[in-house]
Formats: sequence, C-alpha cells, structure tokens
Amino acid sequence: MNSKLPNTKESIFSTMSALARHSNALNLSQGFPSFPVDPILKELHTNAVNNGYNQYAPMPGISVLRESISIITNKLHSAIYNPATEICITAGATQAIYTAIQAVIHPGDEVIVFTPAYDSYVPAIQMAGGIAIEIPMTLPDFKIDWEVVNDHINNKTAMIMINSPHNPSGTMLSHQDMLQLERLSIRYDLIVLSDEVYEHITFDQNKHLSAARYPELKKRSFITASYGKTFHITGWKTGYCLAPEHLMKEFYKVHQFLVFSINHPAQIAIANYLKEENRYLDLGAFYQRKRDLFLNSIHGSKFSFQPTQGTYFQLLDYTNITDENDVDFAKRLTKEHKIAAIPISVFMNGKDPKMLRFCFAKEDHEIITAAQILNSL
Amino acid sequence: MNSKLPNTKESIFSTMSALARHSNALNLSQGFPSFPVDPILKELHTNAVNNGYNQYAPMPGISVLRESISIITNKLHSAIYNPATEICITAGATQAIYTAIQAVIHPGDEVIVFTPAYDSYVPAIQMAGGIAIEIPMTLPDFKIDWEVVNDHINNKTAMIMINSPHNPSGTMLSHQDMLQLERLSIRYDLIVLSDEVYEHITFDQNKHLSAARYPELKKRSFITASYGKTFHITGWKTGYCLAPEHLMKEFYKVHQFLVFSINHPAQIAIANYLKEENRYLDLGAFYQRKRDLFLNSIHGSKFSFQPTQGTYFQLLDYTNITDENDVDFAKRLTKEHKIAAIPISVFMNGKDPKMLRFCFAKEDHEIITAAQILNSL
Ligand SMILES: CSCCC(=O)C(=O)O
Ligand SMILES: CSCCC(=O)C(=O)O
Repeated sequence: MNSKLPNTKESIFSTMSALARHSNALNLSQGFPSFPVDPILKELHTNAVNNGYNQYAPMPGISVLRESISIITNKLHSAIYNPATEICITAGATQAIYTAIQAVIHPGDEVIVFTPAYDSYVPAIQMAGGIAIEIPMTLPDFKIDWEVVNDHINNKTAMIMINSPHNPSGTMLSHQDMLQLERLSIRYDLIVLSDEVYEHITFDQNKHLSAARYPELKKRSFITASYGKTFHITGWKTGYCLAPEHLMKEFYKVHQFLVFSINHPAQIAIANYLKEENRYLDLGAFYQRKRDLFLNSIHGSKFSFQPTQGTYFQLLDYTNITDENDVDFAKRLTKEHKIAAIPISVFMNGKDPKMLRFCFAKEDHEIITAAQILNSL
Repeated sequence: MNSKLPNTKESIFSTMSALARHSNALNLSQGFPSFPVDPILKELHTNAVNNGYNQYAPMPGISVLRESISIITNKLHSAIYNPATEICITAGATQAIYTAIQAVIHPGDEVIVFTPAYDSYVPAIQMAGGIAIEIPMTLPDFKIDWEVVNDHINNKTAMIMINSPHNPSGTMLSHQDMLQLERLSIRYDLIVLSDEVYEHITFDQNKHLSAARYPELKKRSFITASYGKTFHITGWKTGYCLAPEHLMKEFYKVHQFLVFSINHPAQIAIANYLKEENRYLDLGAFYQRKRDLFLNSIHGSKFSFQPTQGTYFQLLDYTNITDENDVDFAKRLTKEHKIAAIPISVFMNGKDPKMLRFCFAKEDHEIITAAQILNSL
C-alpha cells in the first residue's frame, strides 16, 4: 500500500485517552469537559428529535442557526456575514478546517503553519497536495516572529493558518500580531485560516481578537468555530465556518460532496438554545475559576508555568522533576501516577520543551485530585 | 478565484428541494423518508444525551456499534470484519465515500464510475487529484457491460466504484456481475468502492449481493453503508465503512483528520437499538408495499416504467407526455403541478433518457396524491 500519509500514526489524543482508560488514570489529556451539558440544551435536543427534525438538514446548515451566528458575530466582532452565502455549519471545527484547505489549496501550494500546531493541520494540507511550511513559535513564550514569517513567504505561499487562543500553549495573538498578519496577507495576497475554537475561553485582561474584526483580513479569511468547546458538547460534532462569499462558494462545493450536511437535531437544539442571548458570556469566568483552582492547587509543586491566557489547557514545565522526554514522562505519569496529559513534542516535530499539556475542563474534585498527584512528584 | 471544482454547481438535491419548498409542491425529489422515526429509537437517543454521551466518541466510532456491525455483517454476508481494525463509523455514507477516495486515490489515478452516478462520486475523485472515467450504463435497462469496462482499464486504473441497489435506476448487480467485477479486480489489482447504502431495500426476488460475500473482492473493497436510509434518520448523518485492514488503516488516517469522530449520542442510540436483532429485516417488505402502491396508483397514467428492484426510487419514462428535456420538465412539474422529482440527466453528463426519479419513501396519502397528479398529465 502506497500510503498518502506515510508518517501518520494514531492521534496522540486517541493514544493518551486509551492509555488513561487502561491505566484507570484521571484523563487530563484529550481536551473535553467532564461536567454535564446544560439540561436546557439536552431538553432542546430531545425536543428536536421528537419534533421530527430527523431528515437531512439543508446543505450549509439550517438557516435559523446561520442567522443567529451572523447576528452574534456582528455583535461580538462588528463583522457582517451574510447567512445565506458566508456561513456553513460543519461536523465540528476539524471538518471545517479540512474542508477549507481542500477547497482552496492546490497541489504545490505552500501553507504556513506555526508549531506547536493542532495535529490535523499538516495532514489536511498534505491531503490537498499542499506543502506545510512549519515555523516554530518562539520559546518559552510561544509567540510568532513576523519577520521570520515574512522571510518564508514566496510566490508559492497560498495560506497562513493561525490559532488564537492557541492550543496547546494558551497564548493569544495581540492586536499588533493581527495587524502584522493583515499586512502580510494584503501584501502577498494570501488566504488566512483562523482557527478560533477557543474564542470564548479567555482569561484575565486578554481579549480574543477575531480575524473578522480586521476588515482587510476578514476579506481573505476562513474562520472556524466550535460549539463543542463552547457548550460542552464535543461529542455532538457541531461547529461552523465563516468566510467571505468568494471563499465560502468554494467551501460549499467541497462540503456538499464531503458530508453534504450535518446532524439536524443538534443544529435545531443549538439554534433554539441561542434564542436566549449571551449563552456563552460567562464561559471565560467559568474556566478562569477552574484554571485558578488548578494553578493555586499546584503552587507548591516542582512544576513551573505561565498561567494560560485562553483555552482550557495549561502547560506545565517539568524540568525540575525529570529529564525524560515528554512522551516517556507522559506515559509514565499515566501508568504509574494515574494522571494523563499530552506531550507537546508531537506537535513540534519532536522538539521537546519538556512541557506537558493538562486539560482543566474538569470537575473541581478532579482538578484537586490531579493537583495532589502533581504535588507529590 | 482559481476553483478546484470549476464545473460544480449546487447539488440537484438542494435545487429541487428548495424549488419544492418555494412552489409548495410535494417533494419526491431528494431521497428522504417523510414518515416518523421509530419512537424506540428516538427514546434511545434521548437517553444517550441524558446519560452523558455528549463528549467525543472514539475516533473510529464506539466499539459496541462496531461489534454489532461485525456480527450483523457476518450473519448477512458470511463475511468477517474485525471491529477493532476494519470498521469505521462515519458522518453518513457521503463522508465514508469521500474519505475512502481521499485515502487511496493518488493524483493521476483513474477511477471507473458508472453513469448515472450519485453526484458526489466524480468531485470526490477530482478532489483527490484522480481522474474519473465515466462509463455509461446500457439503456434502457441500466446494466454494466463488463467488456466495455475491461477495455477502459489501463495501468493508471486504481479503483472501480459500484452502487447496488443503484441510485437512481433501482437496478441491482447480479451474481454474474459480481463475479466479473471480482475477476477484473484480481486481474488488474484494483480497489473497489461498493456503495451499498440501499442494501436492505430490495424487492421481489431480488437479493442484495454485497461485495463482502466474494472473498477476493472483499480483500480489495471499501463498502459504505447508511443508517440514514435504513432507520429513516437521514438527518442524523450516521453511516459506516467496512474494509480489510490494509485499506481501513489508510481510511482511519484520513478520517482522524477530516472529522476525527462523529456524533456520539446517535451512535449510542443506534447501538442500543441494534441490541434487538433484525431491526431492518422488514424494510424490503415495508418499501415494496410503498412501491406497489405507487405503481398501482399510476398504472393508468401516460408514464411508462420498469418496477424498481431496490432503493426507494422509481424512474418514470415521460416520452409519451412531453419532449421537454428532463430538467425543464422536472421544474415545470414542480412549479405548475406541485410535484418535485429529480431529473437524471444531471448524473449522466447531460445525456437525457427522458426519465424522472421519484422517491416513494413517503406517507401513503402523499403517494396517492402524487399519483393523482401524475395521472392527470
Ligand atoms: C479531536 S480530539 C482532540 C481534542 C482537542 O481539541 C485537544 O485535545 O486538543
Ligand atoms: C444527500 S441529499 C441526496 C439524498 C439522496 O441520497 C438522493 O436523493 O439520492
């Protein structure tokens, strides 16, 4: 078999979640909430099924949900998207990312990706025949050096992918970053894919700056978003993509043949849930309390850290504990100490800053148990 | 914008369903059932959501559903698939088809497709950089001439796609067809993609012959299946793919980055539903009654037809009524006579056998109303 993805192994998320299960360990690896979904949203889902929304949804998603996305996006980012031609509901943000890349990346096109990068980005580029140009973020602060980016752009460069708040580091792009990106995208006529799935999970004074806020950037950007992350329903696989009409037109073409449409009752439930406004406005505060609980609880441990600015992930530096590589340490931690985390070298071509990523989207008692284990190391 | 699918327009299913809606017409175009889902299955879905199955399912799908598929496939087709390595739950059969093609078709590979073909096949091939070799089925009987197929195979040929029961014609491949396909696939070392989404909807003495039944064919085949069609839940977007391990390994790699995993509560509900065996065994009889009601009711009309052997579609030849092309006739029928059907020339590169496709997965009173309209033409 001549594999199209010869270097692809099982996703680290599957590997670590399976190891956590087999080891009976607390699973702070794969990012998903352990607390229940809002009973109102569950009831709306039941109603959708009982009210007969069980056949195909329209190809781009139900119009009431697209209209609600349009209104909310305008309120939050002062950005106007036409619900009929610039929004598509997707089977999670992963499908949105894959589809956007399929839609516009031609064989030989170069796509700039910042590492550590979510593990679907590079294979999605390769499957489109594109070439991923991986630029490491600066360490230990996980920032983008735009001079370096500029140096990597040539006449094959077609797209830059960004992700803010950033998984796994929790850093966020600043206004200056967004202006630099906008400038480059104009100068070199680039498409931008802005993965904003953690947009509502930001802490302290940090404010999410959507690509939609920057008019010239908006004109060239796909923006991907996730209800899974926002409403604690990662298993419903519901997200969406925003893009100006000329890009969304190409996205729709691929979406139509890749999946045609997505789960109908989930769309109805979310659309009805969003009738009450500001459903997610407390999400930052909700997760900030979790983050602070976690960080306060491990303050006496040998781990060192910078408090995460956004996402539900916290990186912990373990150089004071062991000189194992992060994959070995993560596995040992799971098997021996019963706590699973994600080694981040797998997102950095093996470069190992000796940090593990912990997901704190967990019940308080799980966070406290995790902290006790980490303090004992 | 340099489009990767320059010739793609809106899917005929979206177009006709929208026209039906705007015209307030009976929609027998896009294939979906108009009757309700089994209340037991709906209740199982509610339970799945309430019991907390709202976070990511495992990448290839939940193991209990994969195990049940393995058992049922063995019972029906005497074919053994390992649930751990040879089965993947997908967001409908469309996603399964797109993923299988992405996984194994390399740029320049040729893929044989029989027309009329479901409209996602050719674009899916093109998106992988493959070349669709479209071989028309013989008319008016919609059969495959294997001599012609043999003549189209060369050293670039990588795959043959089949679909039985066939959408839109309702014809089925015979044992002789399957043997011919098996012989060619061995001789030229080809992969087969067998789209079997209507496997349980067969009529009269016609028996579905899965590619899984033919040992040498099974070794080289992806088989795609649909719970949407089988359990009247097209909007849940749940299907699956079967393949031998060396093919499924490549499928998993793509699936993992294309969507990662699919809707969790729907999988739980279906798995529990399948605990009672033979849930779909009456499906053929159920739809045969609908087909017969439809055909008996239009017996006095000017349409001519061969009773469909499988699927929930019936082709009607309208040469005795008008010499319009099928797209014009379908649109006029929708707007003026309030009944929508699918023109099949769109699946045949414009070749127009003057037939429309009617979906009879409808309530009896809708079928009767439709027949009254058709009789009046
Ligand atoms: C799709 S499984 C991975 C979930 C996730 O987003 C993460 O853990 O980073
Ligand atoms: C995905 S919409 C089309 C439904 C269908 O399978 C058909 O009508 O042929």
